[in-house]
Amino acid sequence: MKKLINDPHDVVIESVRGFARAHADLVTMNEDPLFVARKEQKAAGKVAIVSGGGSGHEPLHAGFVGEGMLDAAVPGAVFTSPTPDPILAATRAVDRGAGVLHIVKNYTGDVMNFDTAAELADMEDIKVSPVIVNDDVAVEDSLYTAGRRGVAGTLLVEKIAGAAAERGDDLDGVTNVAQRVIDNVRSMGVALSACTVPHAGKPSFDLDDTEVEIGIGIHGEPGRHRIPAASADSITDQLLDPVIADLNLTGGEKVIVLVNGMGGTPLSELYIVYGRVAERLAELGVDVERSLVGSYVTSLEMQGASVTVLKADEEMIELFDAPALTPAYRKGM
Amino acid sequence: MKKLINDPHDVVIESVRGFARAHADLVTMNEDPLFVARKEQKAAGKVAIVSGGGSGHEPLHAGFVGEGMLDAAVPGAVFTSPTPDPILAATRAVDRGAGVLHIVKNYTGDVMNFDTAAELADMEDIKVSPVIVNDDVAVEDSLYTAGRRGVAGTLLVEKIAGAAAERGDDLDGVTNVAQRVIDNVRSMGVALSACTVPHAGKPSFDLDDTEVEIGIGIHGEPGRHRIPAASADSITDQLLDPVIADLNLTGGEKVIVLVNGMGGTPLSELYIVYGRVAERLAELGVDVERSLVGSYVTSLEMQGASVTVLKADEEMIELFDAPALTPAYRKGM
Repeated sequence: MKKLINDPHDVVIESVRGFARAHADLVTMNEDPLFVARKEQKAAGKVAIVSGGGSGHEPLHAGFVGEGMLDAAVPGAVFTSPTPDPILAATRAVDRGAGVLHIVKNYTGDVMNFDTAAELADMEDIKVSPVIVNDDVAVEDSLYTAGRRGVAGTLLVEKIAGAAAERGDDLDGVTNVAQRVIDNVRSMGVALSACTVPHAGKPSFDLDDTEVEIGIGIHGEPGRHRIPAASADSITDQLLDPVIADLNLTGGEKVIVLVNGMGGTPLSELYIVYGRVAERLAELGVDVERSLVGSYVTSLEMQGASVTVLKADEEMIELFDAPALTPAYRKGM
Repeated sequence: MKKLINDPHDVVIESVRGFARAHADLVTMNEDPLFVARKEQKAAGKVAIVSGGGSGHEPLHAGFVGEGMLDAAVPGAVFTSPTPDPILAATRAVDRGAGVLHIVKNYTGDVMNFDTAAELADMEDIKVSPVIVNDDVAVEDSLYTAGRRGVAGTLLVEKIAGAAAERGDDLDGVTNVAQRVIDNVRSMGVALSACTVPHAGKPSFDLDDTEVEIGIGIHGEPGRHRIPAASADSITDQLLDPVIADLNLTGGEKVIVLVNGMGGTPLSELYIVYGRVAERLAELGVDVERSLVGSYVTSLEMQGASVTVLKADEEMIELFDAPALTPAYRKGM
């Protein structure tokens, strides 16, 4: 294992410190318990949004803290949910009396710990509304999940719900739009190589030189099947087809597409994948209204990519287009 | 070799097509000869800026085409300079009568081909002014270079010169500010792993499991020396010390820092490196005015990073802060 790290046990804290230092104009860091919050807290009346989960998926979530997206993010240990304590502390820190939306990826630990934090917040009269992101169509249950996993679609939930909160929607309204995104967003990913959790020191799974894993999770959890390494077009089709089927796209729909890198994939390859996705959707008569191509929801240094499609209504597109100013995503600011 | 590609010989054209499709709101692509230009060309009177070079360093250069940065970018084959013909075509396409700045990284092929294109442009009465970026302090001469190599500092040249052109400086003015950035920017990089050129099909060099290469170039050219894999802090110091020495930083200076990923490095690790750079410069009494952390000038899927420091005056900082709207870099727009 070669990584640009110091003590493997200090990876998260040192990385978040560097992040907070690099983006001191936008965020503040609370060390104990660990969370990242917007530097300029909003005035009373705005719904706050908190997300979080295991580290190793950077820039998710802390990279999306800022105007128009999250109010706070709670990084756990690598691939490990944060405990209720920092989630509660972050929730408390950003609540402005209008309630707090929790955006939770569907992993057993995350769901349980965010739920406990919400109960504790309720005892302090902070109203919390949770949404559970479960966009991965690859598998129904997996190593860390009951039901579908939450993966790259989380970015779109955070962007669109963040814009709804920013324009002044109340907690029910923000929750509803977040849930509408979740109901209409689907993803599937591929791994070309494994990743290595720093304190484990060895790859989290083995993939031989001639195979790729279709339907991989963002922690390297097993996918649907392994196939011999194939062309980008063939692999892209194997990711896109189940997404199209699950969303029941038949033509005429408007969509937002995200082609996401897993951390170790060159941007040039992501654009090849995007080209194929765009071509296939055009053939189907589906209108790609907006697109994002980049490494937004990663798995450490894993090579691979995922394809996310959101069946979008006019309001989602409008909220997607709204200004945002965060370390990893900015638009119009 | 596992990559998300189709035919290895079509990597560049397919990637640029996907890129142009994803960013059709900002750029247009000319297929033959191949270059990418701003969608909205400026009116007469604005100095145009063209850059380019071998592909494999994405998002450099095409990712920086747009308002406030480049007017056009010319992608060559992977790690291979574009020929004079597309450089001339791009130069012709974006000239608005006020002349064209060529931003060229210091590699023998790039310098020669941009020079030929400039001569041909001159015969068409297009005035071209070239600047040569040579920020890499690692080696004086190398596999592809006479003198120092041009690496990640190129991003800062493109951002700052782009802002000068956008505010209406004339060709001499834009050239002068670009040259001032070049004179004050220094970089050094490390590789933890090699990268594989698609049509070669095997890694461009061998690095064993316990070694890293200090002073690596962005094509995997040899650096200063190999050392046993070490901590992020130790490696960062070995990159930063020669940069500090070359810039003769003694305290009191203002700088812009770029911690750049080589393509296969997780963002979380880049922030650990940034944390160390910030700490070291603070100890020295150097004022980090602005910073960028991300994978901007890459070497395919190479794992590694580089540290770039620009000794900046007030005008450079002001131009760095100016709005930009490109596929890979946006600020205030």
